[in-house]
Amino acid sequence: MSSDAPGLTWDLIQAARERIRGKVHRTPVMTSETLDSLANAQLFFKCENLQKMGAFKARGATNAVFALSEAEARNGVATHSSGNHAAALARAAKLRGIPAYIVMPTNAPKAKQASVARYGGKIVFCEPTLEARETAAARLMAETGATLIHPYNDLRVMAGQATISAELLEEHPYLDLILVPVSGGGLLSGITVAAKSLKPGIRVIGVEPEGADDAARSFRSGHIIPMVNPQTIADGLRSSLGELPFTEIRRHVDDIVTVPEEAIITSMRRIWEVMKIIVEPSGAVSYAALVADRLPVKGLKVGIVLSGGNLDLDNLPWMKAP
Amino acid sequence: MSSDAPGLTWDLIQAARERIRGKVHRTPVMTSETLDSLANAQLFFKCENLQKMGAFKARGATNAVFALSEAEARNGVATHSSGNHAAALARAAKLRGIPAYIVMPTNAPKAKQASVARYGGKIVFCEPTLEARETAAARLMAETGATLIHPYNDLRVMAGQATISAELLEEHPYLDLILVPVSGGGLLSGITVAAKSLKPGIRVIGVEPEGADDAARSFRSGHIIPMVNPQTIADGLRSSLGELPFTEIRRHVDDIVTVPEEAIITSMRRIWEVMKIIVEPSGAVSYAALVADRLPVKGLKVGIVLSGGNLDLDNLPWMKAP
Repeated sequence: MSSDAPGLTWDLIQAARERIRGKVHRTPVMTSETLDSLANAQLFFKCENLQKMGAFKARGATNAVFALSEAEARNGVATHSSGNHAAALARAAKLRGIPAYIVMPTNAPKAKQASVARYGGKIVFCEPTLEARETAAARLMAETGATLIHPYNDLRVMAGQATISAELLEEHPYLDLILVPVSGGGLLSGITVAAKSLKPGIRVIGVEPEGADDAARSFRSGHIIPMVNPQTIADGLRSSLGELPFTEIRRHVDDIVTVPEEAIITSMRRIWEVMKIIVEPSGAVSYAALVADRLPVKGLKVGIVLSGGNLDLDNLPWMKAP
Repeated sequence: MSSDAPGLTWDLIQAARERIRGKVHRTPVMTSETLDSLANAQLFFKCENLQKMGAFKARGATNAVFALSEAEARNGVATHSSGNHAAALARAAKLRGIPAYIVMPTNAPKAKQASVARYGGKIVFCEPTLEARETAAARLMAETGATLIHPYNDLRVMAGQATISAELLEEHPYLDLILVPVSGGGLLSGITVAAKSLKPGIRVIGVEPEGADDAARSFRSGHIIPMVNPQTIADGLRSSLGELPFTEIRRHVDDIVTVPEEAIITSMRRIWEVMKIIVEPSGAVSYAALVADRLPVKGLKVGIVLSGGNLDLDNLPWMKAP
C-alpha cells in the first residue's frame, strides 16, 4: 500500500467506538501516589490488562468482526495468530454468532488452545512453520469463505485499538505524553492517530524490549526491518511491524525507545506490588521506560498503556527454578 | 457498652463519606463473564484491594483521623495494630499533618515496618506479647496525649468501612446479597449497617476461614467467643471480634459461613487469573464461599468485597518450596 492511501482516520475510530460499546470493557484509568512520587510525574495507567480476555486485543477483534457485512460475516472469520488475538477473535465471533477458525501450530501452548476453545473457536492445527501456517490459512479460507482478520495489519483492528486513547483523553485531556508497548504496531498506530486527532500537541512514544527492537530500528531507518530471532521475556512483543501500522507510526509517532529485560521485570513486579494488578511482561514494557529512565518526564502528566495481563502464574520471573 | 447504645448510624456513615472524599479511592466494581458463568449468578466485585494502601483499612483510619477535633488532633494518634491499619493510620495522620505512633512487636515483618515508615509513622517497638503491647501503648498515650484509634472496635472506623457498601449500592442498587470477609468485625458491621439502611431487604453474609471461625461461633452463640490459636493462610483474619462491631453483627447480619483453606487458595488464584488483580488470601475469602459452594446464589446478583491485596510476592501459596 502506498503512503498516500487514506490509512487510519478519526471517522474509522469513531465508528469503532460506537461499534464495540457494551461489547468490551471501558477499562479503568488507575493512579498511584507511590509511583508518581518515584517518577516525579503524574502517571495515568490505562488498564487494558483488565480488558475482556485480559488484553487490548478484544477491542480490535470486536471492531473487525462487527464491521463485516451480513454477507461477509455469514462465512465466519479466520486468523493464524496463536496469541491473545486468536481468543479475542473467537470471543467476538461468538458474540456475533458466526464461526471463527484459528490456525495454530501443533506446539501452541495448551493454555492458548484452551482459551480459544472456551469461546467456541474452531482450531485448525498445522506444522509449526510459517509456510505451513500460511498454507493452512489459505486452504481454510478457500474452503469456508471466512474473512481473514490479521492481528494488526488491518485498519479495522487498528481502529479498535485506537479507542483506548480516545477513552483516556476523554477522562484526562491534560496528558502531555502517552507511552505504549510496540510489537506489530496495531496498538501504537491506533493510539497515536486517535491521540493526535484529539490533541495535536500530545507526544506519543513507543516502547519495546532491547532484544526485540525492530520497531525502533525501522522507525529510525524509515523502512520496515523485520524482527529476526527476538530475545525477550515479553512474549507478546516478538512480532515484526505491519505495513499499515508502520505507515501511521512513521508519520505520527514521536519516538520509539528500548528497555532492557531487567527493567521489564522490575516494572512488572512494581505494578503488581504497588497497584495490585496483574500485568504481563509485554504489558509492563511501557512503564519500564520510566524504570530504565529512558526519557525525561519530570513534572509531566503521562499516560501509560498497560496492554495485557495474561501469563502463567506458575512461572513468574522472580520464582526460583525448581 | 450496652446493646441499647446508639451504635453505628446512617448519619455517622454519611458524615464519613463526606469526610474521606478525595482522600481515599472510590474503588472500582469489577465484573467477569467467566466467573458469572461458573457461579450461575451475576457477581459484582468491590475492589478494596485497589484502595490506597492496598486495603479497605484506609477508609476507617482516614475517617477516624479527620473526625478528631483540632485539640484532639494536635497530639496525634496511636494504635497497636501491626497490619494494614497501622499503615493506613500513618497515611491519614500524614494527610492531616499530625503524628502517628505505632506500637509494634520487635518481630513484626520488615515489610510492615517499612510500610508504616514510608508514611512517616513513628514506630515504638515492644516485646512480642499482648501485655507488653498494651503497656507500651498506655505509656505512649500518657506521654504524648495521642488518641488511640483501634483497628475495628471504634464507631469512626466502622463508619469509614461502611462507605464501601454505600458506594456499591449506589452503583448496583439491585444486589440481592453481599459477601464480606470477617475478622475483628469492623468491615462486616460497617457494610451491613450501610447496606440495610439503603436497602432493608438485602442480605449480608460474613465469610471466615474454618481455622479462624470465632465470628461464626460467636454469631451462633450470641456472645463473643475469642479466637485462640487461629490456623489459616488468611493472616488478616486472625483477630477476635470487637464488642462494638459484634453488637451490629448480631443485630443485622444474616449469617456467617466458613470456608476451608483450599477454597481460599483456589479463590485467590482464580481472581488473579481471571480478573487480573492481586488479592491477598484474606481478601479472597468472600469469593471462597462460592468456590466452596457454601450458599445458594443461582440467579442472584451478588456483591463480593475483595478486602485487600497486600502480600509477599516471593511467597505465594502455589510456589514450590525452595
